[in-house]
Order: sequence, then C-alpha cells, then structure tokens
Amino acid sequence: MKLLGRQTWQFAQDVFVNAAGTAVGPMESEGPLGALFDKRYSELHCNEKNWELAERRLMEDAIGSCLMKAKLKNEDINFFLAGDLLNQVVTANYVARQNQIPFLGVFGACSTSMESLAIGAALVDGGYAHRVIAACSSHNATAERQFRYPTEYGGQKPDSATFTVTGAGAALVSHQPSSVRVGAATIGKVIDLGIKNPFDMGSAMAPAAADTIATHLQATQTTPADYDLIVTGDLSGVGSPIVKMLLHEQGIDISKNHRDCGLMIYRPDQEVFAGGSGCGCSAVVTYGHLLKELIEGRLSRILVAATGALLNPTMMQQKESIPTIAHAVTLERVKGVST
Amino acid sequence: MKLLGRQTWQFAQDVFVNAAGTAVGPMESEGPLGALFDKRYSELHCNEKNWELAERRLMEDAIGSCLMKAKLKNEDINFFLAGDLLNQVVTANYVARQNQIPFLGVFGACSTSMESLAIGAALVDGGYAHRVIAACSSHNATAERQFRYPTEYGGQKPDSATFTVTGAGAALVSHQPSSVRVGAATIGKVIDLGIKNPFDMGSAMAPAAADTIATHLQATQTTPADYDLIVTGDLSGVGSPIVKMLLHEQGIDISKNHRDCGLMIYRPDQEVFAGGSGCGCSAVVTYGHLLKELIEGRLSRILVAATGALLNPTMMQQKESIPTIAHAVTLERVKGVST
Repeated sequence: MKLLGRQTWQFAQDVFVNAAGTAVGPMESEGPLGALFDKRYSELHCNEKNWELAERRLMEDAIGSCLMKAKLKNEDINFFLAGDLLNQVVTANYVARQNQIPFLGVFGACSTSMESLAIGAALVDGGYAHRVIAACSSHNATAERQFRYPTEYGGQKPDSATFTVTGAGAALVSHQPSSVRVGAATIGKVIDLGIKNPFDMGSAMAPAAADTIATHLQATQTTPADYDLIVTGDLSGVGSPIVKMLLHEQGIDISKNHRDCGLMIYRPDQEVFAGGSGCGCSAVVTYGHLLKELIEGRLSRILVAATGALLNPTMMQQKESIPTIAHAVTLERVKGVST
Repeated sequence: MKLLGRQTWQFAQDVFVNAAGTAVGPMESEGPLGALFDKRYSELHCNEKNWELAERRLMEDAIGSCLMKAKLKNEDINFFLAGDLLNQVVTANYVARQNQIPFLGVFGACSTSMESLAIGAALVDGGYAHRVIAACSSHNATAERQFRYPTEYGGQKPDSATFTVTGAGAALVSHQPSSVRVGAATIGKVIDLGIKNPFDMGSAMAPAAADTIATHLQATQTTPADYDLIVTGDLSGVGSPIVKMLLHEQGIDISKNHRDCGLMIYRPDQEVFAGGSGCGCSAVVTYGHLLKELIEGRLSRILVAATGALLNPTMMQQKESIPTIAHAVTLERVKGVST
C-alpha cells in the first residue's frame, strides 16, 4: 500500500537520501551545530551585493555541496523541487534558472523542507524520477524586509517572536542504496485556531504539528516509542510545550523524544527571542545534523514534522488569522549499507 | 515506462479528469467563452469586501462546481494541489484552510495550472492518491496591486502588456473512468533569455513554451499533427508568433494548430492590450472550454503548455531579467466512456 489512510504515503524500502548539503549565515555558524554545516558565511551578505542574492548563494551552495558529495552533476538530476519564503519563491526560481534542472516550485512556508522531500520521495518511489533534489532556504534579512519592518527601523519584538534562520538545505533522493531511507510521509491539512499575532508563530503552528504527527502515527501504526526523535520544524520555545500538550490530550506522549529545530540551531545565550524559524531552520538541522546522526548510527528512526505559517503581510493587515500546516517525513537508518 | 527522457511522465491509460469547475469575473464573462464558465461575476469584488477575498471566492466556487458535478465532498479528496499569484500563494492557503483537504502548495506563476495537474496526475497514477483536486486562480485587481502600480494611479501601459484574467479553475483527477484522460506531462526548465520588461511577458515566456513543447514531442515521440490543438497559456499576441517561430527553427511546425488561451478568452474589441494572462487564464480556458470540446468529441487530443513568468517586483527593481517556465500536459478523449 502506497497510501495509508487519507494523506500518508508509505514508500518501498528503496527510496534513499544519498547526500545532503547545507549553507548557513553567521548566527547559525556560531550556534551549537555550526561545525556540521558544509558552508558557513561570517556575514549576512555571503559575499553578494544584496540579501536576495545572498539567499540565492546559500541555496546554490547547499545544492553544490550535495551534488559534490554524491559525485553528480546538475544534468544527472530529473527534477529540482524547491521553495522559499520570498514572494513568488524567487530564490528557488533563480536557482532553477542557473542549474537548469526541470523545476517544480513548491510552497509550504517553513514546511517547504518536508513538502519538497515528501513529493520528491514519491516521484522516485513511483518511478517518475531517477534522482531528485529537494531544497529550500530562508534568510534573516530578506524575511525581515518582506514580512516585518525594515531592519533599520529597529522595531522592538516580544519574546514570543522567532528569529529567521539564514540557511539553505538540499537533499538528493534516489533508488541508489545508502544508509538513510525515506520511510513514509504525511501531507498536512491547514489548521487555524484563530491566532492573529505574527510575532507568535509558535503558538499558531503547534496545532498543525500536533495534527500531522497524530495522523502520521495512526496511519503508519506507530507510537512515539518507535522513533528516537520526533522533531518539529520551528515551534520554538513557545510552541514546543503546546504541541506536547495537544498530543498529550490525545493520549500521545512525545515529551521524552521531542526536539524542535528552532531550539537546536542556536545556543540559549544567542539573542534569538523564542528560537529559530524559517524554511532553512528545519532544512539545515535535518540535513546537516540529524542525517549525520542517522548515518553514524546514533539515531535509527526519526520523524521530522516541518511547520509552516501560511500568511502574508496583506492578510495580517486585513485582520485575518494565520493558517498553518505541517508536513512530516520518517527517516530511517538502513543497516548494513555504507554510504 | 513512467519516465520518458529526463522530464516527461507517461501515465497509464486510467488517469482521468472526472470533472472541472470554473469561476470568472466580468470581463471574462463578457468574452467569447463567457457562457461556458460555471460561475460568472458581474463585478470584480465578487460580492466580497476586498479583492483578495474575491479571488478566494473564485477558487472556492471553481472547486465547489467541480465537486458538485462529480457528486463528491471535500472529505472524498486525498490532496488539494493549488497555487496562485499572490505573495505566499495565500489564495490557495486560505481556501485549503476552508476545505480541510490535505494541501500541497505549488508555484509556477501562470504555469501553476498545469504544474498542479501534472503532479496530481502523477500522484493518482502512482497510487499515492485516489482523488486529487488541482486548482489555481488569478484576479486582475489583486495582481495589479501586487505586481504593478496601484490601479487608482492610472499608469499607462504599452500594447505588449497583458491583462490578468480574473478567474479560477479546478479539476478532479482519479482512476474513475471518464471521457477525458491525462496522457502525459512534461515539467519545464527555467528559461531566461534576458528580457527585463515586465510589460512584455509574452516575449519573455515564449522560449520556455517552445522548449517544453519540443521536449514533450520528442519524449512522447509525437508530432504536432498528433494533436488537434497545441495550446499555450498566456503568450498573448506578442508571444504567440515567437513560440511558433522558435519551434519552426527546430523543424517543428505548430502554426496550423496553435492557439493561446490569452487570445481565446477575450474578444478582439475588449481592451486587454496584448491579451489575457495569469494562472486563471489557462485554467479557465482549459477546464471551461477545451475539456468540454474533448468530452463532446470536437477535439480528440490536445497539448496544453501553460507558461509562467517567475519574477517578483523586488527582482525587477534589482535589475534582474525574467526567468520563465512552461509545464505541458496532454489531454485525450477516451472513446466509449460516457461521463
């Protein structure tokens, strides 16, 4: 069965993540996972003349590292699935112009990391691609410029605000055996419990994460104990307790093995309000850190539920509440395969 | 073989378009295809209090008509694949909040119509969904507000400019036999020949359309004569001669059976500059008109190559040229099946 329940895909045991690449900015380089990222920039411009070009550079670097590790070229890839937070996903569009890989633009806000990985895995599993690259990016300065106030304005933020990660991640998926497999994926529904405060995305997104995690566990007939980690994308310090509480109310206890990428990427003493967010957050933590833990055997099976807030500033001006979504992917260590 | 060449999908003969729905604004209602659309509004607000809500109404109407014809409910659908031109595809996001169908946000600018249909068909063909809805929308006033100047400013436009269609289209794809089948699909590469004028999208997008059409014909080993029509999305009066010329240079003559949705949706005497554009353009012409022609036997096989300009206003301010893409889908009449 490829479809479990309404919205969960079970892949055959031969859909692998062959390689991944990551690129980050200065704050992420200085964080606890800094040394694990393939490319680290010491300033937000990443040697480019504007922030939008810097974000593009990060995504290109991530893909470049991924392909280099896999000893492949752009021409070897069937499809490039990518998105980002900029209007009309222009980072992905311009990177696709450069790499000339047939392109599927996807958008799930910060859940784009797992949306692109899930669709990519389905295309490989189903025989619609030999190899795909799934990628996404975010950049603190491009996101601030577009979604909030000009940085120069120096607007104050509450502690519930998150800090957009400057980073990009890319993963190569194919049938070529490697030590990490894509096991299953659940595509989320849009959940909106009426939160209207764009400075509290964690509270807004937690119900979507809970819904997708509960659906995934039920569809795959697994329990939290079947995963070494259940990782959310960017719920931060505010949303993380909420997802645990919401699942606990349904009899699902993830308190022992829940982690949030937004809380893993920065040190507690870094000034990032409630934690990291953005497409790049779950992408670089998953592809730069968690994948390595799986490859090296410190983790055997994880569930990554990337969370996204599907707003734009016009909707907030029009007094709309924030629709949110989460897409979840199971990654599993394959025993006896050397990468 | 599901994958032909690098980027073309050949579906089995049991992936059908079961129903479709369309909703349009006043100019489209008054055009030559007006009577064919399911829902027609006589003013741009579509009985809503702002344009963004109006666009949302159009997409909801299109989906509602589609489901009503198929005698299905939202709960019967596995996945909703949709996108639009608004920042962060908010029309699709908020419609997904309403319909509660597991949601995959996609973005290909005006090519989103065929991107969503192609991925949806692959999910059904591969066993990842029983039923999907593919949808997209555009609205003249929301697009003008976001991409160009405030409408009230009354900026003059050159004749090469296109007029964004106010409309939405939705299609239901499943294995349930019906009289129209999704035959094959080609996912495009991003093409950018250096055009920087956002008032001449037709010239910018024509090379992408030519590339995707040529790739599709080669991969499926077909010639233009195998199609009753080869339809482009929104190349308009400026881009249409260019796509024909570019293909002619490669020895492919589509001059006898080429049509452009942007030239089909309005009468020559309607004031729409070079013709219609927007996600809604190819969606409503394909789902409202061409599908009916296939169902009723006036067409047997068509290729729809929807074209998209992957820009945003910031990129234009930064003096970037316009990346473009086209995704193509073959639709075929199935003999002996009554819908």
